Amino acid sequence: MNEPIVSPLAPAAFPALPPVAGATARVARARYKAWDRCDLTFITLDPGTAVAGVLTQSRCPSPEVEWCRAALPQGRARALVVNAGNSNAFTGHRGRAAVEAIAARAAAHLGCRADEVFVASTGVIGVPLPIDKAEAGLDAAFAAPPCGWEDAAATIMTTDTFTKGAVATALVGGQTVTIAGIVKGSGMIAPDMATMLGFIFTDAAVAPGFLQQMLTDANTRSFSCITVDGDTSTSDTVLAFATGKAGNPTLTAASDPGADAFQAALSQVCLELAQLVVRDGEGASKFIEVAVTGAETDVSAHRIALSIANSPLVKTAVAGEDANWGRVVMAVGKAGEPAERDRLAIRFGATQVARGGLAIEGYDEAPVAAHLKGKEIEIGVDLGLGEGRATVWTCDLTHGYIAINADYRS
Amino acid sequence: MNEPIVSPLAPAAFPALPPVAGATARVARARYKAWDRCDLTFITLDPGTAVAGVLTQSRCPSPEVEWCRAALPQGRARALVVNAGNSNAFTGHRGRAAVEAIAARAAAHLGCRADEVFVASTGVIGVPLPIDKAEAGLDAAFAAPPCGWEDAAATIMTTDTFTKGAVATALVGGQTVTIAGIVKGSGMIAPDMATMLGFIFTDAAVAPGFLQQMLTDANTRSFSCITVDGDTSTSDTVLAFATGKAGNPTLTAASDPGADAFQAALSQVCLELAQLVVRDGEGASKFIEVAVTGAETDVSAHRIALSIANSPLVKTAVAGEDANWGRVVMAVGKAGEPAERDRLAIRFGATQVARGGLAIEGYDEAPVAAHLKGKEIEIGVDLGLGEGRATVWTCDLTHGYIAINADYRS
Repeated sequence: MNEPIVSPLAPAAFPALPPVAGATARVARARYKAWDRCDLTFITLDPGTAVAGVLTQSRCPSPEVEWCRAALPQGRARALVVNAGNSNAFTGHRGRAAVEAIAARAAAHLGCRADEVFVASTGVIGVPLPIDKAEAGLDAAFAAPPCGWEDAAATIMTTDTFTKGAVATALVGGQTVTIAGIVKGSGMIAPDMATMLGFIFTDAAVAPGFLQQMLTDANTRSFSCITVDGDTSTSDTVLAFATGKAGNPTLTAASDPGADAFQAALSQVCLELAQLVVRDGEGASKFIEVAVTGAETDVSAHRIALSIANSPLVKTAVAGEDANWGRVVMAVGKAGEPAERDRLAIRFGATQVARGGLAIEGYDEAPVAAHLKGKEIEIGVDLGLGEGRATVWTCDLTHGYIAINADYRS
Repeated sequence: MNEPIVSPLAPAAFPALPPVAGATARVARARYKAWDRCDLTFITLDPGTAVAGVLTQSRCPSPEVEWCRAALPQGRARALVVNAGNSNAFTGHRGRAAVEAIAARAAAHLGCRADEVFVASTGVIGVPLPIDKAEAGLDAAFAAPPCGWEDAAATIMTTDTFTKGAVATALVGGQTVTIAGIVKGSGMIAPDMATMLGFIFTDAAVAPGFLQQMLTDANTRSFSCITVDGDTSTSDTVLAFATGKAGNPTLTAASDPGADAFQAALSQVCLELAQLVVRDGEGASKFIEVAVTGAETDVSAHRIALSIANSPLVKTAVAGEDANWGRVVMAVGKAGEPAERDRLAIRFGATQVARGGLAIEGYDEAPVAAHLKGKEIEIGVDLGLGEGRATVWTCDLTHGYIAINADYRS
């Protein structure tokens, strides 16, 4: 594959992510592929760290996903290991053995239980992760000096073209707590209940069950609202770790002082991370927001929004800077959700182009054309049926996607 | 748009379609676009012709689809009018008026009822079909000499790169009956219950209700089993006309002599027409058959097969001649249907590449590579769960699709 150029939708810089007390990142070269870059991330977490997670709903998940799903209920974490370059998915008993070996090695280093070690891997499907490389990489990482979040964000990348992070703070019980997150993902992005690899760290004290509840809520309006290509990964994983070092009274329920603020901050970090994945969508040249209103229910609005966001014809029209709202109508019509053609209204940016089932005669095309020439595209659809609404984010479909994906494995 | 080159998957020639007694085609230039080609097809049908149809399930259908849906129950047809270059979809009352005007004009020419005139249109969405052009085109067609099926097949095309037809015969009640069909379609192809524009003509005598039953059955295993881009048109229409001129005893039920033979011939024509659409898929360089076996039910197998056939990552892998069965696993996993990773078996062509949840170690890559270099690709997936099976057909996803669709409307 050619050297990736940085996505034109990338932010100017990686944000200033502060350290999170109780979480320490280290990286190393496991050399899962024939490359000279760090590809193993080892993040140690102080005793008492709570963990929550959302995982792919794929029926063919990776053994890492199965490992995390089994370990999550006990709610505590001491380490996170992330391998890049090999997803270890669909590798049978050898894949499972690799995950077990990684957890055992990390647990031995830290003197913790294996089920307190969380593991995620990303890369090619079907090649068992080499245990010797993983163990040597872990040993090297354990001996390495701590690194910052940007190094960790770089080490978990595969086809990503830029490092992705987000941060927010919240005042909880008189203490300012920090929530820092990193994410990777670029293609095979169509989260159902979770997506790609995202890791969030906070120094707040939060009970595991409540952390899970808040993460699930945040996920519903962030990672579950993005799509690049409609293809759902076998390895999608978002984990949140709360070290408790901030000294706030432990959050245990939504009625606790500061719980609202923490939920808002967590949701904000999740949304920023999710949108960063779209901004690194394979071949993306435009960031697209699809806002659906007036649906019968929020769920119906979400399905219609995803039908639009996943339509190759809508995505290629945006790539071509073509205000082809007919393709939006098509995508609404195929969603299988309640819709009435003659109540539909459609806008690009701030300009209504169709209303009441037909084009608005003589609408001003200039602002629409100008909007479509930009990098941030808004498509608004009002169904005129009810109060249901949803917003999803995607990118356009360009030659870049074809170039990247017709030549990935080789 | 550049001049289309002919799809590399096109057959060598249009088949020899014989005349069908009682059906007469004529074509004319309505000039719906700024082109110098025939774009209006007017097919007259002798009195007594039975009609059946399957129509898009889109919630935003064209007025033509609504017209046909309303006219079908009475079961009789005297004419078919097909407009190319303008789909007349999402055009509100003006679109409805255009269809009514066309039906009235054709009915006046033939001295029949308006609801015996069937209308279909294909092309850009959102521009009302100009009534003056349609009426002048109809008048011109009515005055024109009859033409053959290939001229009609050429006149209904839009982004198609070759004319598409199929023919079969059946022995019914001592009479050989002919079934001839034409079809157009290239993009926005993801039939749910019907697809694109397909028209089938037979000289057999068939009662309308039974013709509908047989067409619905044939559709389930043909047009409903193809996809190009997962985008379902607002105008998908397949109509079958039976003129009754062959002189066979009218078919009224599956137990009638010859009904089986007729069903088989009709299904064969539908399957050939459907596959021709895939062979003209926008940008297609490979014809792909996805065969799923061992699913819990046939419906489940069909959904899994479509999940694979609609996956951009699977389609780009085939374009890149890459035996990336990991992406097939991904597509099985995301289908939301019962599947067990560790029972999955996958083959490319005749070569098993994965079984029991992991790659077959040391499988011979040479025949797989050779298979993928060809133009006819087979992907076989066995789920190991039950007896459910389904086969669907699609094409690969190439730069050609992007080039065609990022610059269509302009």
